[in-house]
Amino acid sequence: MGGRGTVTQPRAAEGDLALLIGQDGKRFILRLAVGGELQTHRGVIAHDALIGTEWGATCQTHLGNAYVLLQPSLDEILLHLKRRSQIIFPKDLGYILLRLAIRPGMRVAEAGTGSGALTVALAWMVGPQGEVHSIDRRADMQELALANVSRLGLESRVVFHLTDVTEGFPVEGLDALFLDLPDPHNYLRQARSALHGGGVLGAILPTANQVSELVDGLSRSGFSQIDVCELLQRFYKTIPARLRPVDRMVAHTGYLIFARALAPLGTVADDTGSAALPLASSDEMTDEEQAA
Amino acid sequence: MGGRGTVTQPRAAEGDLALLIGQDGKRFILRLAVGGELQTHRGVIAHDALIGTEWGATCQTHLGNAYVLLQPSLDEILLHLKRRSQIIFPKDLGYILLRLAIRPGMRVAEAGTGSGALTVALAWMVGPQGEVHSIDRRADMQELALANVSRLGLESRVVFHLTDVTEGFPVEGLDALFLDLPDPHNYLRQARSALHGGGVLGAILPTANQVSELVDGLSRSGFSQIDVCELLQRFYKTIPARLRPVDRMVAHTGYLIFARALAPLGTVADDTGSAALPLASSDEMTDEEQAA
Amino acid sequence: MGGRGTVTQPRAAEGDLALLIGQDGKRFILRLAVGGELQTHRGVIAHDALIGTEWGATCQTHLGNAYVLLQPSLDEILLHLKRRSQIIFPKDLGYILLRLAIRPGMRVAEAGTGSGALTVALAWMVGPQGEVHSIDRRADMQELALANVSRLGLESRVVFHLTDVTEGFPVEGLDALFLDLPDPHNYLRQARSALHGGGVLGAILPTANQVSELVDGLSRSGFSQIDVCELLQRFYKTIPARLRPVDRMVAHTGYLIFARALAPLGTVADDTGSAALPLASSDEMTDEEQAA
Amino acid sequence: MGGRGTVTQPRAAEGDLALLIGQDGKRFILRLAVGGELQTHRGVIAHDALIGTEWGATCQTHLGNAYVLLQPSLDEILLHLKRRSQIIFPKDLGYILLRLAIRPGMRVAEAGTGSGALTVALAWMVGPQGEVHSIDRRADMQELALANVSRLGLESRVVFHLTDVTEGFPVEGLDALFLDLPDPHNYLRQARSALHGGGVLGAILPTANQVSELVDGLSRSGFSQIDVCELLQRFYKTIPARLRPVDRMVAHTGYLIFARALAPLGTVADDTGSAALPLASSDEMTDEEQAA
Repeated sequence: MGGRGTVTQPRAAEGDLALLIGQDGKRFILRLAVGGELQTHRGVIAHDALIGTEWGATCQTHLGNAYVLLQPSLDEILLHLKRRSQIIFPKDLGYILLRLAIRPGMRVAEAGTGSGALTVALAWMVGPQGEVHSIDRRADMQELALANVSRLGLESRVVFHLTDVTEGFPVEGLDALFLDLPDPHNYLRQARSALHGGGVLGAILPTANQVSELVDGLSRSGFSQIDVCELLQRFYKTIPARLRPVDRMVAHTGYLIFARALAPLGTVADDTGSAALPLASSDEMTDEEQAA
Repeated sequence: MGGRGTVTQPRAAEGDLALLIGQDGKRFILRLAVGGELQTHRGVIAHDALIGTEWGATCQTHLGNAYVLLQPSLDEILLHLKRRSQIIFPKDLGYILLRLAIRPGMRVAEAGTGSGALTVALAWMVGPQGEVHSIDRRADMQELALANVSRLGLESRVVFHLTDVTEGFPVEGLDALFLDLPDPHNYLRQARSALHGGGVLGAILPTANQVSELVDGLSRSGFSQIDVCELLQRFYKTIPARLRPVDRMVAHTGYLIFARALAPLGTVADDTGSAALPLASSDEMTDEEQAA
Repeated sequence: MGGRGTVTQPRAAEGDLALLIGQDGKRFILRLAVGGELQTHRGVIAHDALIGTEWGATCQTHLGNAYVLLQPSLDEILLHLKRRSQIIFPKDLGYILLRLAIRPGMRVAEAGTGSGALTVALAWMVGPQGEVHSIDRRADMQELALANVSRLGLESRVVFHLTDVTEGFPVEGLDALFLDLPDPHNYLRQARSALHGGGVLGAILPTANQVSELVDGLSRSGFSQIDVCELLQRFYKTIPARLRPVDRMVAHTGYLIFARALAPLGTVADDTGSAALPLASSDEMTDEEQAA
Repeated sequence: MGGRGTVTQPRAAEGDLALLIGQDGKRFILRLAVGGELQTHRGVIAHDALIGTEWGATCQTHLGNAYVLLQPSLDEILLHLKRRSQIIFPKDLGYILLRLAIRPGMRVAEAGTGSGALTVALAWMVGPQGEVHSIDRRADMQELALANVSRLGLESRVVFHLTDVTEGFPVEGLDALFLDLPDPHNYLRQARSALHGGGVLGAILPTANQVSELVDGLSRSGFSQIDVCELLQRFYKTIPARLRPVDRMVAHTGYLIFARALAPLGTVADDTGSAALPLASSDEMTDEEQAA
């Protein structure tokens, strides 16, 4: 089995995406190019000095200031994307990806595109065999998102659709669909048609009023298993002898809403099973209630 | 591009993992087998009545009670695994996967194995090209984890190592390593050796005292970019005209700790870049501070 | 100055309210009476054995089980009141008392009475010179509240009004008024009339929809300085070497809303001050913005 | 009963403490003095124009900018005190006052004095018959606190003790004692001596490490019923059609710790009650467990 699993090269190479973090916490994300330079407020670092350096090494600007050289993780990449709209925070994004059951090879859609942060995250997680459909009626947002996706080399995994979802989604048979729109309750019939039976719908909304409207619409549009939650993240100061939360935190990003598409009526199976048959694998797992 | 992206079959087939949810919220996860039966407290459902039924359909027991037929998402699967230890909650899991930068094709390790819930999650997310190493010194836990992984058909992606990490990790050059141990501060030298430079270390710990010990150890063992956080999840009642949080919530699962492995001293690159070279792609992304 | 300030008697006396806490955390509140007995599930304690005992002492039942003898604090008393409705939690109550600026000698009103828990708290805090008006249209609730208030010997501080506030409040010129009603937005004109200019209105509401209605009504009914908040309380396990939050917590009791009554138009003062006068005491305190 | 309960005068008078809030939310607290002037960044307001004006009225500066005239509540006063140290936030203060069972006529102590914010709050709540002892070894802090207390006319209720509590507290027989010190675990023997049996000890501490030390000390110094909690307060934007939490919040002020002083051994009462006596008033209240 040894050969499987991508082993990251231990040293930075031309074309790699790199993250540099200064001692003041200042962060830069760049793609390494022969001859390139990073201008910081604490001096210049030549890309050539980074290419060939071991990841995790400490590098110095021409003024002698230290920066740690790292490969950026997905959440770090997203926080540095060019944006013209609020992006989804890591605390919400991880949970959304889990609830949408994103996995390698999956086919998934989002509306709207926004700045393309979720687009990048979805493309990253579905891998080269996956397919992400991103739908928006604003050409300027899709251009920005395409630029962001392309900088990460993920453009082959994404199909952008410049269209208004009022007319319906340009894809169907989806496993998962995420709505990052101000009025998702207006597109639930269209969303239901885009999902296959049992597909997962997700949404994020900033206000309680929008949540009420969406939940009301979902229960009348062929969705069930509706749940609504919010995630609060609290960071701690990392002084071991004085462990305590930081002074301030984000109080709110958005409410997260998830639901499952019901199959249309008429698809219900008849129960023709014989009660005399032996028990099969239904006891494979426990049937404990959802913990949360 | 059309052919890419796995399209889920719209109907349940033999061998599929299925989730049935009753009107009382009771959940069952089962693998569909010809001739199988699910015994619920509200009647029996024959697997044969489910096979061929559209996902999202409502099925009935021989007593006429309704269950919705769904494909389980990863978080639902994890909550139903057989377990002998506390498993990682979805609210934490999504964020951990994001911070460890798990992606298709990745090679990653965890210690200890526990009941195998994180093992399953990692194997799910790295896809068929990925590789998960799971390390524990308890044979009974690894047997349980293997059983859980196998029931989901993910066993080809996981290598179990029955060993004590005091002696060092049996893998190296890792991009990411997660420690779910009561005393991770005792294995940081070994963990550092298992990661390549810049690799991500993650851990979850229930008590503040353990966090202090770990943070103290990390800063003295070649790690940087240490951060500590906790996630609080609050669910809402889904009555649109009476939107409000539920009465009770989980107050604590664990503190999450992340750090990056520094390269050993001596690998620091010299800054030999020429200040006269033109700016390259370092301005591709914004350099805003981490938002949270 | 020595003689001022009530010095609690160091020993329990007949007629005192006493709190007994068992080693299992089980709590009993009782009023000590000669010849009385407390029947617990772990044996009997005679009141006569408690009368004359020092507060803070450990007493035993006839079966040898230990109970600590304490004077109950206000929050402990409230949690043990007889009730037929949800009572206000300590986490909310302390903040409400502060925001309503409750103080000795004050005159304050509440609607509705409910089980009388807030009535008791207000009567406790305004002292023997204060006056609490409690308004409800349900006689059964007022009887329960009167019983609760009387058991604590606070009945001389409370005036109960059996009336419907649709007709207006039976008091006026109030400094503070608290509305614990399901539809406070329907009584804002009446509430405004009951408060003097600048008086504080407080309310607690369980759902976001109610908060929207109330805030909307307040801004159109002569109120300003409207704010809405919620308080989350998390308890910790008290094992010093394993400090961590408890497993579960209350996720929601209610949203707290506060506002100040504006004076009717026509009462605005003219600015006739002479700009040439020297600065007076306006700089006595800092003018920093509210911290939260 | 009509004559009881202080009725606030409906109009501002000389000597009153006044709060002015501008349309930008800017706040000023001042004591009204004939001939005084308030200089704001939006113009001047003469105190003479405020004296005689109805509370809740809107006043204007000489530049025509509007300010609402209010009586400040206790939490508003505290947020505007001159300070040289972190003061206790309203969210914590209300709960502390409740847990210490502060009430009119009470005798209570605090160490240290700090900037005097808690001193002011305690003096406000115990009323003219109460007595607050405030202990600190720093003369400069006590001078600041005395100034703050005096500006509010509460100085007759407070006794300042300039002393080091290492030597013991200068008062005894207390019902309640609050420790706002960095190392309260070093003064628990002294604190126990200052409290009567059953008295309440409270403390606030910023770090988890300090909490561990204090809890450890409390359980070995004659205290029981130890509990530790924290309060999180989240404010909401008050736009009815877009109800949502504000963007950021205070993540941490301090952990709150409370305990009750046990009576010294040897004071335990014998159980000499006769099991044959009839039940007395022990059933007056319910014995439900503490709700939170």
